[in-house]
Amino acid sequence: MSDLNRMRAQALLAADGLDGMILFRPEAFRYATGLAAGVATMWGRAGSATALVPADAAAPLAAVMSDHAAAGARHLAETIDIRTHRIWIDGVTLTDARMVADIDAAYRADGNVGPRPETFDQPACFRLLADILAERGLAGARLGVDLDFMPAADFSALKAAIPGVDWRDASDILRRLRLIKNEREIERLRRAAHCAEAGLESLMRAAQPGVRIPELSAAWLAGAREAARLGGYGLSGHWDYISIGPNLQDTAAALGPGGLVKADVGTLVEGYSSDGARTFVWGTPSPLAADIYKALLDAFLAGVEVLRPGNTFGHVHATMLAAMRRHGFHEYYRGHFGHSVGAAAGIEEWPFLSHGNAIVIEPGMVLALEAPFYAEGLGALMIEEQFLIAPDGPQTMNRLPRELVSLGA
Amino acid sequence: MSDLNRMRAQALLAADGLDGMILFRPEAFRYATGLAAGVATMWGRAGSATALVPADAAAPLAAVMSDHAAAGARHLAETIDIRTHRIWIDGVTLTDARMVADIDAAYRADGNVGPRPETFDQPACFRLLADILAERGLAGARLGVDLDFMPAADFSALKAAIPGVDWRDASDILRRLRLIKNEREIERLRRAAHCAEAGLESLMRAAQPGVRIPELSAAWLAGAREAARLGGYGLSGHWDYISIGPNLQDTAAALGPGGLVKADVGTLVEGYSSDGARTFVWGTPSPLAADIYKALLDAFLAGVEVLRPGNTFGHVHATMLAAMRRHGFHEYYRGHFGHSVGAAAGIEEWPFLSHGNAIVIEPGMVLALEAPFYAEGLGALMIEEQFLIAPDGPQTMNRLPRELVSLGA
Repeated sequence: MSDLNRMRAQALLAADGLDGMILFRPEAFRYATGLAAGVATMWGRAGSATALVPADAAAPLAAVMSDHAAAGARHLAETIDIRTHRIWIDGVTLTDARMVADIDAAYRADGNVGPRPETFDQPACFRLLADILAERGLAGARLGVDLDFMPAADFSALKAAIPGVDWRDASDILRRLRLIKNEREIERLRRAAHCAEAGLESLMRAAQPGVRIPELSAAWLAGAREAARLGGYGLSGHWDYISIGPNLQDTAAALGPGGLVKADVGTLVEGYSSDGARTFVWGTPSPLAADIYKALLDAFLAGVEVLRPGNTFGHVHATMLAAMRRHGFHEYYRGHFGHSVGAAAGIEEWPFLSHGNAIVIEPGMVLALEAPFYAEGLGALMIEEQFLIAPDGPQTMNRLPRELVSLGA
Repeated sequence: MSDLNRMRAQALLAADGLDGMILFRPEAFRYATGLAAGVATMWGRAGSATALVPADAAAPLAAVMSDHAAAGARHLAETIDIRTHRIWIDGVTLTDARMVADIDAAYRADGNVGPRPETFDQPACFRLLADILAERGLAGARLGVDLDFMPAADFSALKAAIPGVDWRDASDILRRLRLIKNEREIERLRRAAHCAEAGLESLMRAAQPGVRIPELSAAWLAGAREAARLGGYGLSGHWDYISIGPNLQDTAAALGPGGLVKADVGTLVEGYSSDGARTFVWGTPSPLAADIYKALLDAFLAGVEVLRPGNTFGHVHATMLAAMRRHGFHEYYRGHFGHSVGAAAGIEEWPFLSHGNAIVIEPGMVLALEAPFYAEGLGALMIEEQFLIAPDGPQTMNRLPRELVSLGA
């Protein structure tokens, strides 16, 4: 199912004078259509999975996709105008075949005959798109494209293949649409955050003197996966940045007394990635580590206080930086103290809680707020949580304590 | 360490009349410099990690990279001209600090002061690149860029920022360079294939009536990871496409009598991905499945026979397709029967063993050869192996039997 709000899209496209937008990035294709873009997008080239979003919210979506990916999309053919192209992967339906001699007929019965391209046929994909545009009266329209993704070589080919269109950059419109989440998206991010935190509880149980990063990482993942299993859903991905001890580049470090463990982790549910972090210490932290953590926690709490509708993203940044300054950190400077989360190429999504950012916080956003401190020679410390912005303020999606948790003697 | 052969680069760049090439794709940056591109490349935007490869093989490489990524690259500063830009992540070296009041001085001692950008500062990155080009006498040169990656929006910005350069597409040169592997690359691919196969042995042990895809996937990964651990190296990634039973879209299928298990899997070692597949059956396969497998194995062996220096990629495709035709498959058509492997964005790399492909097989290539058959209603069957092309022919990097292996009663 599409997660795109067609009425908001209509408003944003109209404001930019666009008749529609065409999305090539696999994640954007999925966002607009609800369909998996398929394996022919693995090279990052444009064309194999293409979504047309007309500005007119009453006009149906259209999609160009591979025959391989479309095999799982037949249930949506009534709501989305799907045109398919053949890719390199052979496939046939053999429900009634008894012997090899029956197989040729099975291909022919499905009209599934003829050669297949080496990978995918980009000119053929662009021709299918041109057909749709012509049928919709958009062959000479002004259309947006996600030019922050589309490879320059492919954009040249697109312009040559469909010369009548006035192509513009719609990257910013897509970002603004994705910033406000619907209930399904919020639930995916809630589940992802839940699994990531269950993983952190598993990590804490695995901590002991001498433990190394790979063991903590495996424990984290096992806990996250078990939470997903218990919840009856799957994880579509996961990532972790775990550090142990004072030397940030030391991937072979073993946990010892007073050693810090920073775990910045996320799981993905249907492509939506959580983002959160906690810091642990084995035994008692050094006085300096404790003081730094105190400042970070204070800055974090100050950020939560202003993370509410009506405030700008820049105000949150200024508030958190001011808190660090009050604690005596005059040269510390973070480019951002958080960001939107969702289903984009990077874990961190635009917009960012950054200096002077005039974008206003609104209900329906899901934002990660983070207060990190990376000190070579002492270790990494970090607090990060994920918040749904409700009309009356932020609602955390996390539950683990925010304090620096001591894990052992 | 760079995996780029500068003499081959010089020859290919000269043949295209280029004075050098500039690489923006993170995997290409790593290939050229041996350095990790860093987290600021997560959004797929160009600039944060940029490599300059002068055509003159005697001229040193240059790199623009983030201060965060460069922290792990100091040992290479003698061989690569590294220019750094500040990204959003604060960091400080605190070797001597005892209290918070000591921290400001630690920043200043490293010249690590001032604001940081929201994410990374693309104009600043392009200015650093312009500086290098000016110093090298390349400000008005003809330079190649990996335009099969670079987002169209970023290419526009690059052209505006450095207007004197005659920009060309160097995507094909980079692909040709990457096609011939050095010893380090071959060893990474050998290790990756070894771990993937160890994973398949673990998968076979986990197979039993009722087993489902997530359990087989977990067993595969555990076996692959254990092999890496025993080998004393890490996996930088992994992927698996496992299917069970007759319905290709049924991700909840359980293994039953006569059920097929197709496991197309790979692990990554230092970014280099293996690619290989085996098919198993619980008990006895149906006569039709056995006959299809026989045809696939015959086509695969015919492909191995001609996978040798001097033959074209197209000849391998024609040979394998002819073998399938001899077995009575007249409508079966694969766009390719294999491809190069390495460390690109997609698992499958250019060039492909495809119809009419005139590229000639050479020693030093590592190619995956594959014979797949996807039959909805019967199941997926596939044989795939990875070969180092030696002067006297192909050397497999796999060791598991190629036959359809029966896993149980």
